[in-house]
Amino acid sequence: MEQTNEALKSRNIRTVRAMLNEMNVADIAEELEKMEEKQAVRLFRILPKEAAAEVFAYLSRDMQKHIVEAITDPEIGGIIDDLFLDDAVDFIDEMPASVVQRILKNVPENKRNIINHFLQYPDNSAGSVMTIEYVSLKADMTVAEAFAHIREVGIDKETIYTCYVTGYDRVLIGAVSVRTLLLADTSVLVSDIMEPNVISVATVEDRETLVSYFNKYDFMAIPVVDHENRLVGIVTIDDALDVQKEEASEDFAIMAAMSPSEEPYMKTSVLKLTKNRILWLLLLMLSATMTGAIITSFEKSLAAVPALIAFIPLLMGTGGNAGSQTATLIIRGMALEEVALSDVWRAWWKEVRVAALCGAALAIVNYLRIKLLGGDFLLAITVSMALYATVILSKSIGCLLPIGAKKIKLDPAIMASPLITTIVDASSLTMYFVIARAVLKI
Amino acid sequence: MEQTNEALKSRNIRTVRAMLNEMNVADIAEELEKMEEKQAVRLFRILPKEAAAEVFAYLSRDMQKHIVEAITDPEIGGIIDDLFLDDAVDFIDEMPASVVQRILKNVPENKRNIINHFLQYPDNSAGSVMTIEYVSLKADMTVAEAFAHIREVGIDKETIYTCYVTGYDRVLIGAVSVRTLLLADTSVLVSDIMEPNVISVATVEDRETLVSYFNKYDFMAIPVVDHENRLVGIVTIDDALDVQKEEASEDFAIMAAMSPSEEPYMKTSVLKLTKNRILWLLLLMLSATMTGAIITSFEKSLAAVPALIAFIPLLMGTGGNAGSQTATLIIRGMALEEVALSDVWRAWWKEVRVAALCGAALAIVNYLRIKLLGGDFLLAITVSMALYATVILSKSIGCLLPIGAKKIKLDPAIMASPLITTIVDASSLTMYFVIARAVLKI
Repeated sequence: MEQTNEALKSRNIRTVRAMLNEMNVADIAEELEKMEEKQAVRLFRILPKEAAAEVFAYLSRDMQKHIVEAITDPEIGGIIDDLFLDDAVDFIDEMPASVVQRILKNVPENKRNIINHFLQYPDNSAGSVMTIEYVSLKADMTVAEAFAHIREVGIDKETIYTCYVTGYDRVLIGAVSVRTLLLADTSVLVSDIMEPNVISVATVEDRETLVSYFNKYDFMAIPVVDHENRLVGIVTIDDALDVQKEEASEDFAIMAAMSPSEEPYMKTSVLKLTKNRILWLLLLMLSATMTGAIITSFEKSLAAVPALIAFIPLLMGTGGNAGSQTATLIIRGMALEEVALSDVWRAWWKEVRVAALCGAALAIVNYLRIKLLGGDFLLAITVSMALYATVILSKSIGCLLPIGAKKIKLDPAIMASPLITTIVDASSLTMYFVIARAVLKI
Repeated sequence: MEQTNEALKSRNIRTVRAMLNEMNVADIAEELEKMEEKQAVRLFRILPKEAAAEVFAYLSRDMQKHIVEAITDPEIGGIIDDLFLDDAVDFIDEMPASVVQRILKNVPENKRNIINHFLQYPDNSAGSVMTIEYVSLKADMTVAEAFAHIREVGIDKETIYTCYVTGYDRVLIGAVSVRTLLLADTSVLVSDIMEPNVISVATVEDRETLVSYFNKYDFMAIPVVDHENRLVGIVTIDDALDVQKEEASEDFAIMAAMSPSEEPYMKTSVLKLTKNRILWLLLLMLSATMTGAIITSFEKSLAAVPALIAFIPLLMGTGGNAGSQTATLIIRGMALEEVALSDVWRAWWKEVRVAALCGAALAIVNYLRIKLLGGDFLLAITVSMALYATVILSKSIGCLLPIGAKKIKLDPAIMASPLITTIVDASSLTMYFVIARAVLKI
């Protein structure tokens, strides 16, 4: 790309164009991101018209914004018109109001109406990720007619490989792949070779469900229908790949007590990173005060047997780890729709048994370690009993809290390790001191 | 499906077949999983031959094993022969030796040789997930000849929508989509409309890199080549979707200190779950001993100012949370190839600044809280200073440890919260006590 820079400097546009022609649009977008803004805008404007919208769709929001601010109104209109509808809507959805206004002013009225309609679908719904660039056929077309239709409209469609068959009032009645069409005789009717049992999703369906459909059925595209089973759009598998990646990243962030961000890490500013983390850190710090208060309230016991203090990190740490193991599996299982709300008691019973086994192993090893290092018998018993109880409790909480969150329609990922750790800390310390008082008679 | 059960009981095979015919193969597989083994095998055996292999590919490993053990040798041979090669290899790779032997004995020799060859690709490489069922064209074919070829071979290919153009000795020289072929004149040569700059991966490439290619380029398939650029297979986007899901699940598990498992949570046995967790719990418990030893070594300071004890959970908790926030973003960023090894110092400097801001906010709030609750001025200063230092340290460790792990070719996810928490605990407590001794003069 240094060559491109050189060529740009020498203003040899023909050389640059020839180089760009050989590159994949995703690679051109990547190179633009590395350039200074002014340079990037200049390069963007010499892209061939067909490539411009494609490259634009691959750019980061920041770069898209710079470009839109730097180019003329007709250029904007042209790019938005050339974008697939789902990319256009995604982009417009995240621009500031002033930019949105300027964009909508410059696209043709019919496109403007469709965009406005799409902007109203709820975030994270199938409607918000679908596109309208699909091929629809009629049941009484022959295969030859179907191909003629595909050749006529196919160039602007996101996929031509699955065609949807619609009946009266755009109601979805079947699907047929180009493979099937290619292998069939040209005089056969579409209705004879189409698959009449089409799996579709509703516009309001959650996009995570959409991904689980792609995972389950290995489709290349899934049709989206309204409440009267009319075909309104499709979602293609490449969008499902993006959604799946974003959802996983979101869950990773939330489970580590951060607000999720769509920006790549290296491009996120220090202030933004701080903003995404500080509230959770404050909240968790203040809730750790509770644990401190519990310790203070047992100050006399600790003064009587100071050796008890040394085991506080061990109990808190093990409880946190045991709980977050469970919480992670449950949260992930629910995200992949492998664990349902109705599994709650079966899952809990599974975790209690796992906890009983893990707790026993940990308690025995811990007892032996204390005894081998010459520790007191009753102290060893106290710590091991507290450890066992902590593991059972933390795995129960790690299982029930995320499922409970989902039940009341909260994101289960919020109930991940940091929050569970805080709750487990408080309860495990209380159990520890209660057991210590009873066993050590203090 | 209750109807299917009824129909099966009444042995009315024709009714069952008619019902199965209307169902998607993924749904049939799902229903089989819910049945008793014997019942499932019976239903499987009355599936139409074409559907049997497809349904088989969607079944869990357990059910696949039961079925293979229950059916005849010729039936096995037929199913393996009908499976796409990547599915066959995946399945065979996870069967016990005795089953593998019986399978290989019953497939035709040429297929057996290919399977044996595929079984040798390293785990998690592009070679291990690719399939050989692709359409290859020659550059001097016309579009009409290309379509004739696709019609002839297309039925057994995993995708026909991207065709690869190979030259002498199977060297990859171009790619052309069925869309381009459909929109072109039938007399045009493939070489005139093919894309000559094809992005491909090597057989030994890591499958995570493969997924990042699909994310970047929105391809439907990517060709896999050997070291002489000869086309040896393709990977389709639906496999990339599976790989991406598995890799994320693996990272979730490892980051919560568990051995990853491919089985869905509700189907994993209590013993297996225990086995996946117990070693890490033991290891982390024993390493928490270190933290206990540090507390013991500062016993005198704690006896002098018992109020110090109450802040141990707050310091440990905040350090753990701050560190795992950073570690999660870095680990995820590296998995998505957004953070490179060479970014190490830029990332660290980012984290130090974020830590300086977060640490300051936490220290101030903590100071105010202690003072407002009538705490000692010097105690408040001690805790806030320790807190500030802990946040800086834990975010540094959370950044450097995962990148360092990747540098020495370990999985960065291993360096996630539990391990970092243990390290942060020990160092933050040491700093706390050192600061306390200096400030409180004990």
